[in-house]
Amino acid sequence: MEIGQFKTVALVGRTNTPGIEEPLASLASLIASQGFEVVFEAQTAKEVGVSGYPALSTAEIGARANVAVVLGGDGTMLGLGRQLAPYKTPLIGVNHGRLGFITDISLAQMRDLVPQMLAGCFEREERTLLEARIVRDGKPIYHALAFNDVVVNRSGFSGMAELRVSVDGHFMYDQRSDGLIVATPTGSTAYSLSAAGPILHPSLQGFLLVPIAPHSLSNRPIVLPDDSKVDIQIIGGRDVNVNFDMQSFTAVELNDTIEVRRSRHTVPVLHPVGYSYFATLRKKLHWNEHPSQEDAS
Amino acid sequence: MEIGQFKTVALVGRTNTPGIEEPLASLASLIASQGFEVVFEAQTAKEVGVSGYPALSTAEIGARANVAVVLGGDGTMLGLGRQLAPYKTPLIGVNHGRLGFITDISLAQMRDLVPQMLAGCFEREERTLLEARIVRDGKPIYHALAFNDVVVNRSGFSGMAELRVSVDGHFMYDQRSDGLIVATPTGSTAYSLSAAGPILHPSLQGFLLVPIAPHSLSNRPIVLPDDSKVDIQIIGGRDVNVNFDMQSFTAVELNDTIEVRRSRHTVPVLHPVGYSYFATLRKKLHWNEHPSQEDAS
Amino acid sequence: MEIGQFKTVALVGRTNTPGIEEPLASLASLIASQGFEVVFEAQTAKEVGVSGYPALSTAEIGARANVAVVLGGDGTMLGLGRQLAPYKTPLIGVNHGRLGFITDISLAQMRDLVPQMLAGCFEREERTLLEARIVRDGKPIYHALAFNDVVVNRSGFSGMAELRVSVDGHFMYDQRSDGLIVATPTGSTAYSLSAAGPILHPSLQGFLLVPIAPHSLSNRPIVLPDDSKVDIQIIGGRDVNVNFDMQSFTAVELNDTIEVRRSRHTVPVLHPVGYSYFATLRKKLHWNEHPSQEDAS
Amino acid sequence: MEIGQFKTVALVGRTNTPGIEEPLASLASLIASQGFEVVFEAQTAKEVGVSGYPALSTAEIGARANVAVVLGGDGTMLGLGRQLAPYKTPLIGVNHGRLGFITDISLAQMRDLVPQMLAGCFEREERTLLEARIVRDGKPIYHALAFNDVVVNRSGFSGMAELRVSVDGHFMYDQRSDGLIVATPTGSTAYSLSAAGPILHPSLQGFLLVPIAPHSLSNRPIVLPDDSKVDIQIIGGRDVNVNFDMQSFTAVELNDTIEVRRSRHTVPVLHPVGYSYFATLRKKLHWNEHPSQEDAS
Repeated sequence: MEIGQFKTVALVGRTNTPGIEEPLASLASLIASQGFEVVFEAQTAKEVGVSGYPALSTAEIGARANVAVVLGGDGTMLGLGRQLAPYKTPLIGVNHGRLGFITDISLAQMRDLVPQMLAGCFEREERTLLEARIVRDGKPIYHALAFNDVVVNRSGFSGMAELRVSVDGHFMYDQRSDGLIVATPTGSTAYSLSAAGPILHPSLQGFLLVPIAPHSLSNRPIVLPDDSKVDIQIIGGRDVNVNFDMQSFTAVELNDTIEVRRSRHTVPVLHPVGYSYFATLRKKLHWNEHPSQEDAS
Repeated sequence: MEIGQFKTVALVGRTNTPGIEEPLASLASLIASQGFEVVFEAQTAKEVGVSGYPALSTAEIGARANVAVVLGGDGTMLGLGRQLAPYKTPLIGVNHGRLGFITDISLAQMRDLVPQMLAGCFEREERTLLEARIVRDGKPIYHALAFNDVVVNRSGFSGMAELRVSVDGHFMYDQRSDGLIVATPTGSTAYSLSAAGPILHPSLQGFLLVPIAPHSLSNRPIVLPDDSKVDIQIIGGRDVNVNFDMQSFTAVELNDTIEVRRSRHTVPVLHPVGYSYFATLRKKLHWNEHPSQEDAS
Repeated sequence: MEIGQFKTVALVGRTNTPGIEEPLASLASLIASQGFEVVFEAQTAKEVGVSGYPALSTAEIGARANVAVVLGGDGTMLGLGRQLAPYKTPLIGVNHGRLGFITDISLAQMRDLVPQMLAGCFEREERTLLEARIVRDGKPIYHALAFNDVVVNRSGFSGMAELRVSVDGHFMYDQRSDGLIVATPTGSTAYSLSAAGPILHPSLQGFLLVPIAPHSLSNRPIVLPDDSKVDIQIIGGRDVNVNFDMQSFTAVELNDTIEVRRSRHTVPVLHPVGYSYFATLRKKLHWNEHPSQEDAS
Repeated sequence: MEIGQFKTVALVGRTNTPGIEEPLASLASLIASQGFEVVFEAQTAKEVGVSGYPALSTAEIGARANVAVVLGGDGTMLGLGRQLAPYKTPLIGVNHGRLGFITDISLAQMRDLVPQMLAGCFEREERTLLEARIVRDGKPIYHALAFNDVVVNRSGFSGMAELRVSVDGHFMYDQRSDGLIVATPTGSTAYSLSAAGPILHPSLQGFLLVPIAPHSLSNRPIVLPDDSKVDIQIIGGRDVNVNFDMQSFTAVELNDTIEVRRSRHTVPVLHPVGYSYFATLRKKLHWNEHPSQEDAS
């Protein structure tokens, strides 16, 4: 897709979000007035009550839209990103509320920036996805994509989980912990950060293993090349489960193995020209409060 | 109880522990031969199959024994400590397997050290306990003691818990996290340590609040005077639960408050003369491996 | 000193602080108009250029003033606190610039709150001090007080320091690291916090040992009862030095021992009625940003 | 260099290491007996007192030897690796003393493994190097390579350093801290690990920024693609300095900029067949102590 080639623009809003109707409707008519075909994600169309635009399933959006504008939070982006990944549909994220890590356009800037971006002024970034499958008795029983992270964790009603981790077929360690996070660079600023993981720049070709409350004090986060094959076998603990982006959860059993790989899909994310990943970090993490003025003297 | 005044000694073993019969029986006859009355905890007696000694409930042990010798791990000590706390029965801990933080006598030393200690040569330490009650709609619905910690945590099948914490009636913070640990000094080397809590010396009159994977990166562990009244209210999250020493678990609901206080009971723990808390830390935490020999040059 | 018994009030300002003259002069005349005797710390008087008030040395302030009002930052409080400690002069802290951990009254509130406090409406808190002496060849060669912390650290021009730490005569560990912080509860929110130490409530009777970048990954912060005697011997590393509150620095040599104890002096700090330590933490550490509104969905 | 093509083997020993003569001499004659030309690094030859082999400077080794066998510790490897990098001479590391992260062959295995490796049975790994230059008033004044890390840090005799960090020309943050570590994957298990950095797998194409005791609690380690251009400007603090692998130190001044880039050189390191990076981590970091046997019950 070359600059200026967008024809069909999908609009997607966060569900159950009071106050989202007006900006969505306003954005739709603005974009339509500039000659783009506007389509709405079906659930969004239903909740927002707009009419006059086609209401499409995500698969239909993938097939027909050239770009999707998301109005909501990072969570909405995660869900849509996983669904549209096979279609390579690029995403533009507008935050309704607080600045997100990937919804980096504010409502106030939306009417200025989105049209510019649809006109071809943007910076494009490919975000890595993970795919995981759960193998039981040698057979895959579950499969899912993750934009942020695949998290194996103990239930709240039992003690530590015991996990056997291997990478590319090499045994890494047996770990007793609350769980283990496998995170993409995108996910490095989500749950992983709370569990003391480092930040991975989005263009780093790596992903991250972060133990959650590990029994062994020297079990540190480790960053692997993103073509690594990570296998996590459940070797102890009761009621262990796995989640994907903290949005879907599934139970696993003793001896199940969770195989985590980089997905062959990536999610294209578009940013306004002049976008700075570090500026987002500074705002979200309260960095750079002009330390020279914080003098403790 | 003055030195040399022990008359009745209770023996307690870890349940389901193959190989524990012989050392327990051997210790019993050694102690009995020195003129002490030996009694067995009922479950231990049943599992071990010893005869010739009274088999008592924990309450009976509390009423009748002057001291309890525990053979097992730290977990066995925790359970027994909570149960005997109202009776002020001192505990001696022998580890069956690895050195524990509070079971600091090895099997190999047991036959030498335990008789010396029963004869009055010991160092006595009072370990603090917590008590917690869960209040729902203004009424207490659950009550429990904890030797290590009271842990509020999210279920494995839902996102972060939201907790409102106040101390002595002062609002401290609203916290989003995997959970919150309130730990005694004894508990500071247990789960809390995995969650990056500091170590509290056993004689410190304080306890410890440690957030588990907190959303806010500046939510650090905080140490409070041990007469503080800590109230933790559930203000968000699904399927949140509370556990006590990771040994008993109970579900809580939105708006429930967990009130955590220092218990009026303490647990007397006896150590061999010359006992060093720091020596135990060094061994358990692999400290002090003679750094001068680790030269990286 | 009973409520309402303040007669003489000392004013102290941060040195080299443009813009501090006006609020200091204004505060002086306000207080004087209410019948208090106002005295100025000599250096402050000189810099600010006020006249009509006695200009006293800190020792004279200690002897004559009943309370000292500090206008500046936490650093100014630290210095004055150490100097006035032997005189038990209570301190009131007004921050000129950002809120401090102990300068908790803003310039905007100063004219309301300080008179109320001088009239007897305050909450009084005793802050612990440390004293340290450096012993070389069995003889003390240096002595200093610390309000925040005593920090032993390597020079920037050499590798790790090697320190032998003992507590109450018991060997704790040999440590290789960038250094070791011994902090009071007041100091727990200063440098120690940057080195991953926990927060100690000001009324906790404890102090804190925090290793800086320790070679052994399990060397965690440890909290000791504040009557502990901590001895730190330099057993390796070149150009190791010690500082007190990061305000005075001194070099130490191989085999020197730094003996750190709780000082017999404490620093009385006065807060406005309704003061909340946790409110200060929340503001300084960006806690409690209403997590329920931060929804990532 | 194909398998079996090694002709000339350089031997290098750690300086000032009692007991290193015998294994070096023994290794030399073993290798020579197998038809290789053996040369000694000049300083090693002098200290060890061997004769009968050419004694060469590192530059001569680079020009003439096909492989260098290092007997010592990781530090010896670091120094030699930087010096031989321009010549692409591969290194084999034998630890004299403790297992190192990159000296992974023990003395006991040396006589078996080194000949096998020289015969062509090895696994080859390219380790990334950093190069740094210091720019003052627009002119480069210093240049150095680093195998582990480039560390900017405050002196021990002054407060925090203030650093302005930018990446690829984008401002990242102003940071107040004890300093900042830029580490290669190799360096991620050295000083960086003590400062709470994550572990980077050696084949990850990234490097690591780790703040040391940062004033802002949310200043986390960040992993960047290894073609990033990191500029660190000194904007505050006195007596700030820079070191390279903790082996050479240089002072910097206010407004100096340290420019850190991936070097165009890499260091080839040879491992025995079957080498596992994770096995080294497990041993060095005390991982995997069979958690199922550590039961706390």
